[in-house]
Amino acid sequence: MNSAQKLGFSENTKLLIIHADDAGLSHSENRATIQCLEKGIVNSYSIMVPCPWFYEMAVFAKNNPQFDNGIHLTLTCEWENYKFGPVLPISEVPSLVDDNGYFYKKRDNLRNNAKIEDVEKELDAQIKKALKFGLKPTHIDSHMYSVGASSAFFQVYRNLGKKYNLPIMISKQLMEMVGLIPEENILEQDLTIEKVHYGIYKYFESGKLSEYYSQVFENLVSGLNIILIHPAFDDNEMKGITVNHPNFGSEWRQIDFDFFTSEQNKSKLRESNIELITWNDIKKQK
Amino acid sequence: MNSAQKLGFSENTKLLIIHADDAGLSHSENRATIQCLEKGIVNSYSIMVPCPWFYEMAVFAKNNPQFDNGIHLTLTCEWENYKFGPVLPISEVPSLVDDNGYFYKKRDNLRNNAKIEDVEKELDAQIKKALKFGLKPTHIDSHMYSVGASSAFFQVYRNLGKKYNLPIMISKQLMEMVGLIPEENILEQDLTIEKVHYGIYKYFESGKLSEYYSQVFENLVSGLNIILIHPAFDDNEMKGITVNHPNFGSEWRQIDFDFFTSEQNKSKLRESNIELITWNDIKKQK
Repeated sequence: MNSAQKLGFSENTKLLIIHADDAGLSHSENRATIQCLEKGIVNSYSIMVPCPWFYEMAVFAKNNPQFDNGIHLTLTCEWENYKFGPVLPISEVPSLVDDNGYFYKKRDNLRNNAKIEDVEKELDAQIKKALKFGLKPTHIDSHMYSVGASSAFFQVYRNLGKKYNLPIMISKQLMEMVGLIPEENILEQDLTIEKVHYGIYKYFESGKLSEYYSQVFENLVSGLNIILIHPAFDDNEMKGITVNHPNFGSEWRQIDFDFFTSEQNKSKLRESNIELITWNDIKKQK
Repeated sequence: MNSAQKLGFSENTKLLIIHADDAGLSHSENRATIQCLEKGIVNSYSIMVPCPWFYEMAVFAKNNPQFDNGIHLTLTCEWENYKFGPVLPISEVPSLVDDNGYFYKKRDNLRNNAKIEDVEKELDAQIKKALKFGLKPTHIDSHMYSVGASSAFFQVYRNLGKKYNLPIMISKQLMEMVGLIPEENILEQDLTIEKVHYGIYKYFESGKLSEYYSQVFENLVSGLNIILIHPAFDDNEMKGITVNHPNFGSEWRQIDFDFFTSEQNKSKLRESNIELITWNDIKKQK
């Protein structure tokens, strides 16, 4: 059975979640994400609990339960001048942070340094903080898919899904991207994403990111598809955060915002045979 | 002796520090503060260690030791959607935070809830974090002058100045503003600021904040004066931070930036008989 069938649809159904990652990262990211949900075609998002603008986004999530919202489990901070670290005291999860007490920039540093018990404590604490705040998450996923840094990490992620009865995003493609062997980490009964669509730097660099997104709509596979985007504005704040990091930088994020709020793309989606689905729909099926 | 005499100047000397508070609060605040230092007439600033953009400003401070820089001890977070809390684990300083683990908005809540040992631990930790990061602070002062919430708080502040051999900002006026009795808290040997100049909401509301600042230059008293400003841009980030808080809001901060970087005001200052002085100069005199 493909994932469409597992979810009660016919085999050929093209299911799609349009998902905004990184809510809570900044005010720019929050504003853009909210506009994409309210006026655009984004139908799900997930929040980074350790980030400075978590509170603003969490208030929105509580006041807008009609929108699918997940927890974007965070173990890395890829930015040069904008830093965040664990929600737990550093003394409780010392292996997760650099000399200044911030998350590592790269998954490799995380993989090489993090103790599995620290990963477990911190990710559990991020979910607990969200729940304590009154959020009712629909799913959990992972920033930079760093839960895929090793099989042991992935097992923690899987266990958290079970513990909190929340669907987790499992994708063969993302596993391959982060160097995890899918065959060793995906179980028969898992609901996996058939295809994850996300911008790649070469598209951005050559000015073809919007074109890529257009083609995604044409090229969905049967089963469950997800588009991962990062809407924000190319404003001073995001320029500051993403300085020297054009990959998923502020210009890129502005393109994401523009594409997924455009009236033309809304119409195109409406006229397509694509079936939009949310994590909450998936959660109910479990 | 007035403070000018204590600092080795003649009694009638009009000494002035032009000081930017709140560095580290946001990217907007950092950029504006840096421009005011590099191109404007600000000659001192202090950093909020618990804030999200501390890192960026701390890197600047380390790379630019020519600028006077202090630690803006922080125990309150006055903003609606933008939250920060202690640098110490909440479990170590539980009396300093609200239900969500963030600093209280108001000095009154702080005064009514904070245990003095928590205040002491947290403020000491803020200084230690700055020192560990490699900063060489020239002075310490206090966000919203909340170290003046009570005599016991003030004693902590005074002790930290002694412990780290750093001048602390002591002002009769600010004490009166926060409800502390100057006569009970100022010692004979203290170097106090003769007059603290800062914008008041009524000037801002009536569009006369710039005019007020102009008059400050005309109305300095003999002895040590300080102008406290909060430069930032009226951009999306600052609008988000200061939403529903026009007092010291983003428009106000833009006026501060504009005034203290204007060529006209630079000339005016150059042509005046005002003697600029820094906290570092004061520190050396101690």
